[in-house]
Amino acid sequence: MNFHTRKWIKPEDLNPNGTLFGGRLLEWIDEEAALYAIIQLENPKTVTKYMSEINFLSSAKKGDIIEIGLEAVKFGRSSLTLACEVRNKMTREVIITIDTIIMVSLDENGTPTPHGKSKIEFVKDRLNPSN
Amino acid sequence: MNFHTRKWIKPEDLNPNGTLFGGRLLEWIDEEAALYAIIQLENPKTVTKYMSEINFLSSAKKGDIIEIGLEAVKFGRSSLTLACEVRNKMTREVIITIDTIIMVSLDENGTPTPHGKSKIEFVKDRLNPSN
Amino acid sequence: MNFHTRKWIKPEDLNPNGTLFGGRLLEWIDEEAALYAIIQLENPKTVTKYMSEINFLSSAKKGDIIEIGLEAVKFGRSSLTLACEVRNKMTREVIITIDTIIMVSLDENGTPTPHGKSKIEFVKDRLNPSN
Amino acid sequence: MNFHTRKWIKPEDLNPNGTLFGGRLLEWIDEEAALYAIIQLENPKTVTKYMSEINFLSSAKKGDIIEIGLEAVKFGRSSLTLACEVRNKMTREVIITIDTIIMVSLDENGTPTPHGKSKIEFVKDRLNPSN
Amino acid sequence: MNFHTRKWIKPEDLNPNGTLFGGRLLEWIDEEAALYAIIQLENPKTVTKYMSEINFLSSAKKGDIIEIGLEAVKFGRSSLTLACEVRNKMTREVIITIDTIIMVSLDENGTPTPHGKSKIEFVKDRLNPSN
Amino acid sequence: MNFHTRKWIKPEDLNPNGTLFGGRLLEWIDEEAALYAIIQLENPKTVTKYMSEINFLSSAKKGDIIEIGLEAVKFGRSSLTLACEVRNKMTREVIITIDTIIMVSLDENGTPTPHGKSKIEFVKDRLNPSN
Repeated sequence: MNFHTRKWIKPEDLNPNGTLFGGRLLEWIDEEAALYAIIQLENPKTVTKYMSEINFLSSAKKGDIIEIGLEAVKFGRSSLTLACEVRNKMTREVIITIDTIIMVSLDENGTPTPHGKSKIEFVKDRLNPSN
Repeated sequence: MNFHTRKWIKPEDLNPNGTLFGGRLLEWIDEEAALYAIIQLENPKTVTKYMSEINFLSSAKKGDIIEIGLEAVKFGRSSLTLACEVRNKMTREVIITIDTIIMVSLDENGTPTPHGKSKIEFVKDRLNPSN
Repeated sequence: MNFHTRKWIKPEDLNPNGTLFGGRLLEWIDEEAALYAIIQLENPKTVTKYMSEINFLSSAKKGDIIEIGLEAVKFGRSSLTLACEVRNKMTREVIITIDTIIMVSLDENGTPTPHGKSKIEFVKDRLNPSN
Repeated sequence: MNFHTRKWIKPEDLNPNGTLFGGRLLEWIDEEAALYAIIQLENPKTVTKYMSEINFLSSAKKGDIIEIGLEAVKFGRSSLTLACEVRNKMTREVIITIDTIIMVSLDENGTPTPHGKSKIEFVKDRLNPSN
Repeated sequence: MNFHTRKWIKPEDLNPNGTLFGGRLLEWIDEEAALYAIIQLENPKTVTKYMSEINFLSSAKKGDIIEIGLEAVKFGRSSLTLACEVRNKMTREVIITIDTIIMVSLDENGTPTPHGKSKIEFVKDRLNPSN
Repeated sequence: MNFHTRKWIKPEDLNPNGTLFGGRLLEWIDEEAALYAIIQLENPKTVTKYMSEINFLSSAKKGDIIEIGLEAVKFGRSSLTLACEVRNKMTREVIITIDTIIMVSLDENGTPTPHGKSKIEFVKDRLNPSN
């Protein structure tokens, strides 16, 4: 699993009890899943279709730094299935896991469209084919 | 199911494709679940512990009005289980459903604590017992 | 008066003195009035034209849950007049009242246009006329 | 009337119809009134108590620059009464006017307290009394 | 240097250490520079091209009021060079200084275009040429 | 240089001209620098002290994905000097570069304090010393 985006828990990210607001975390995960899928499928019109069950294993407090990890699990015809884990950067404690996030590639009319991908690609390989 | 909170889809709620950003919707649902549970359990220290799978059945566009519905499904010892449905206020089209959202009542130290509730109460009944 | 939308007072909604920022409350009321009028007048191009005097009767603190109530007071030719009350969900204390909020229905060019409504309608009646 | 704070209308400030969201404007005015009163009364615990009727005379669109003007109208014992006008910086068109905004100075316990001021002071005069 | 826009430091503007988040301050400065340049160059398509070194001389805390000052330093052919200073409104302590902010006037295609200005103009003089 | 955090350019991140708002980008960079320094210096009370000149080389538009790169350039006694580059994830076009960002480690009283670090450490090595 690759951990890219990191977030610094600021006052605006807290619920009234002073811990990380779960809804904010879900917002961050959805954005991360979208951009991960857009990069892989090379289609900006890629949307979230499904998330499997979500366990809130631990929380985070003001000043904590978290990182969001994603992994491509399966390439479908018009879909990409991801797994997600969010953890505390300093303690490595897991905050949330989502086994299955299904992203779907859409065409101009908003209907699912084949993306033609079957494995993870690295952007550097696309840009420098001779590597 | 009771539909309370309504949202007007504004430019800041859109993803780059011009439809409602799924992460924003999850943020709204989590807030609504929290406040619903806090009112029922009469404990402000109530947090989201679990969400079952989420299906994004349809989206919404700028200017749409959506409403978030919640229903108490089960009162546990320290938990309250909710079901959620979000729909478009004008077309009644369902946008998202979540069968199970488990909220947990915590004590001062952040450990689950019995809430002593077993059925839905209406605030007006609490305040005016003679009604 | 119908109380629909509820808000959970989070850190980002506070002024530096630690109470609900009045500007945030006015923002929420304006959104609620707009979506209420849009649903009733069935015209998404409905704007706020006037608010009568606003009394800040009490405030709210972090973690409080408030609910925003609106009532249709008068249907004009191109306008809809609303009354508003915001109260604390747990204590029922009134936070703010606004006697008159005038919403106006506009046409494509932004000029007032008759909306053809004269009484409150419920969406379920529109969609299921045989009920 | 002194026009200080200016705002650049960005996508996040628009309602779904593409014009300045009235609620956002009210939020900006309330913040401006608060900081104006805090500076004059030299008490950070100054809150909005009342706003007289608000007329939305014109709107603004994306990219417009607006400026918020305030004027001290009356110094009460624990209050400061302001008048407000918001206008478009380029066209000078008036967007909104509010004749009376009453700000109240509070003590530690949140009860109104005399502020001891009777006229507008300029910060530079306070800091450099010999000027 | 003219100090226009003022900001009231609210919880959402703080970093986790409880002082003004530097990134928020840079965001405010960039907006202020943009609107200052747009007003002077009378071209809404004016963008930030360069900022010279930034010194964070002091910070601000919740409830402080800051004001952002800008001064036109040089009118280029398609550019406008500004100097910036941000200070605490009550104490006059300087928070940040930026010697050079270069704003560039663009045409429809996004390429630099001459703005035809060579000195500061006041809007009132433009609108009332006979004054 | 390590590129971690990625951002998806949403409507709320645009200036009125429809390109990435520079102030938003500076906000993201400042947050990324802070969390990078906090992780390296193992001191949450680490603040931005200085940024060298900033060149806006290219912009980004709605739907673009950008990534923020940072590199530790020098470990001082109480400071950490970083270099920053932001680029478009798909095209690899550079959006902004900042040669020098100086972060300073503070003690409880807000005065610079030695951090005792002299080279980059990886969190996994700290937690699993036997690796």
